[in-house]
Amino acid sequence: MSSKKHENNQKKKVALIGCGLIGQSWAISFLSAGFHISLFDPVEGVMAQAKEKIKAKLGDLKNYGVLENKNISDYLDKVHLAQDLSHAVRGSIHVQESGPEDLEIKKELTIKIDAATADNIPIASSTSGIPASLYAKDVKGQNRCLVAHPINPPHLIPAVEIVPAPFTSEAVTKAVKNIIISIDKEPLELKKEIPGFVVNRLQGALLSEAFNLVKEGVSSAEDIDKAISEGLGLRWSFMGPFQTIHLNAPEGIAGYVKRYEKMYGEMFNKLDIEWSSVVKLGLEEELLNLYQLSELEKHEKERDNKLTELILHKIKSSKSKKKVKLS
Amino acid sequence: MSSKKHENNQKKKVALIGCGLIGQSWAISFLSAGFHISLFDPVEGVMAQAKEKIKAKLGDLKNYGVLENKNISDYLDKVHLAQDLSHAVRGSIHVQESGPEDLEIKKELTIKIDAATADNIPIASSTSGIPASLYAKDVKGQNRCLVAHPINPPHLIPAVEIVPAPFTSEAVTKAVKNIIISIDKEPLELKKEIPGFVVNRLQGALLSEAFNLVKEGVSSAEDIDKAISEGLGLRWSFMGPFQTIHLNAPEGIAGYVKRYEKMYGEMFNKLDIEWSSVVKLGLEEELLNLYQLSELEKHEKERDNKLTELILHKIKSSKSKKKVKLS
Repeated sequence: MSSKKHENNQKKKVALIGCGLIGQSWAISFLSAGFHISLFDPVEGVMAQAKEKIKAKLGDLKNYGVLENKNISDYLDKVHLAQDLSHAVRGSIHVQESGPEDLEIKKELTIKIDAATADNIPIASSTSGIPASLYAKDVKGQNRCLVAHPINPPHLIPAVEIVPAPFTSEAVTKAVKNIIISIDKEPLELKKEIPGFVVNRLQGALLSEAFNLVKEGVSSAEDIDKAISEGLGLRWSFMGPFQTIHLNAPEGIAGYVKRYEKMYGEMFNKLDIEWSSVVKLGLEEELLNLYQLSELEKHEKERDNKLTELILHKIKSSKSKKKVKLS
Repeated sequence: MSSKKHENNQKKKVALIGCGLIGQSWAISFLSAGFHISLFDPVEGVMAQAKEKIKAKLGDLKNYGVLENKNISDYLDKVHLAQDLSHAVRGSIHVQESGPEDLEIKKELTIKIDAATADNIPIASSTSGIPASLYAKDVKGQNRCLVAHPINPPHLIPAVEIVPAPFTSEAVTKAVKNIIISIDKEPLELKKEIPGFVVNRLQGALLSEAFNLVKEGVSSAEDIDKAISEGLGLRWSFMGPFQTIHLNAPEGIAGYVKRYEKMYGEMFNKLDIEWSSVVKLGLEEELLNLYQLSELEKHEKERDNKLTELILHKIKSSKSKKKVKLS
């Protein structure tokens, strides 16, 4: 986490509306990147509790040596508990709403935030699945509304989905991507709105099959978890599913699909879409641009090195586990 | 990798039939755990080539300091290239077949292996999706046939799916699990045969959705990959999907499903099965036994610590990436 990169953030403020787990995590991300933050939550006592949790989690990060400043108080001095919504958004260059996952509540809340916030300031929602087209369609300033969906726990996971509605202005989308980058996160901009976005659709598809395997009596939940945590998840911690299969056949993804589409088709009775047709429609081209066939051997070796390092890391980490204590 | 644990393996031999990528990886796993191995592949030149690849990959492991013996030659001395199938299986306590992923070929090959191999010696197949009930139903010694499916690259990934057919003897299943444990791997025994087993069904479900998202123009393949490698995959490298969602709600999995089943249902039009009914049918009970609600906060903290350590590891690892070279 580069401190030079954060220089520009030191005098900026963001407003965090909603102080549950997600809001608290955003607070840590913005604080550790140098920002001032204003918190607001309408439920009594939540803000004070949130500040305590933020303090505790900052302490954990400090113990790992990943904070720039020496003292937790340097960060806490930048936390402002706002008495109402309009105080929270005043002077903020970005508003991040992390309210309840309910369409009607989110509609109403966004209208209120829009009314209270200065023009052109982006209003992003942490919603994990509701598109802005749905919750912001009746908002006057809808062109500054979009989704910035983090992954739990957001202060640690880099990926943030950026999902603009058709009515979101490009300038707002760009500004939000930039602020996400400035807090050391990785914005993933969707090209089209879709319920559940990308992250929860991928997670949902995997979960559906996991529930199905338990229901069918094929495996215990514990073994399904291990199939991921001692299996597929090791590669996936540094390499996505497409890159993984692209490296699993000498001819790249086209070869993999040629070899295995039938097997996958048979296990699910029938695949909803033809993988091979998607491969031809640009997918192979994109992957070959990213990872050329002539370099597959090199990428494979890098994968194996990363896996070896990860496994050594896991062994080391589990040996030092006893040091972990609840604060 | 404990050397004491491997003492019992030093005089034992296993036969590896089929010397492609998977056979080579098995070779490394068995060799590094102390075993002698006999390789056999009917295609000319493949065995010699395999021995070279095994040597190179052992060298990589040596560079990471994960091998017990000082010299690669200590391992290569234990590699026997067999002139035919019967020489390969002679004296072996376990036969691992890693032939082509084709039902007819596997049927024929298993009949040949069965005929050549001494009674009671387990014959395991590395097939990634064909149940033993299909490929071994006409095999005389079918009771010693079962699937032991590793995950690519098998010399690095711990999980191995153990899938006995209804006709597989319990003693054989137990013996194969023990040999998998003796090479420091994690056997996951399925309770029931199902095409694709667990690993590839989970991977297939995720891939299907990934292909769908590309087809629908929602995201680039690169961003889908990052949604995993900079997102979901970080948690999954040490925590499976069930444990993940169990920790994502104060009431555990029941609370998570109550909160999100509707959202997942809407994004996929309709879920094929009711998650909430599976939760009630033993899933919640199993997870609560593994991770009690009173300890969720502790587990959450452990998750965050592991994530922090993983992220620090990834940063360190990517900084030292320049040292990686092709041998």
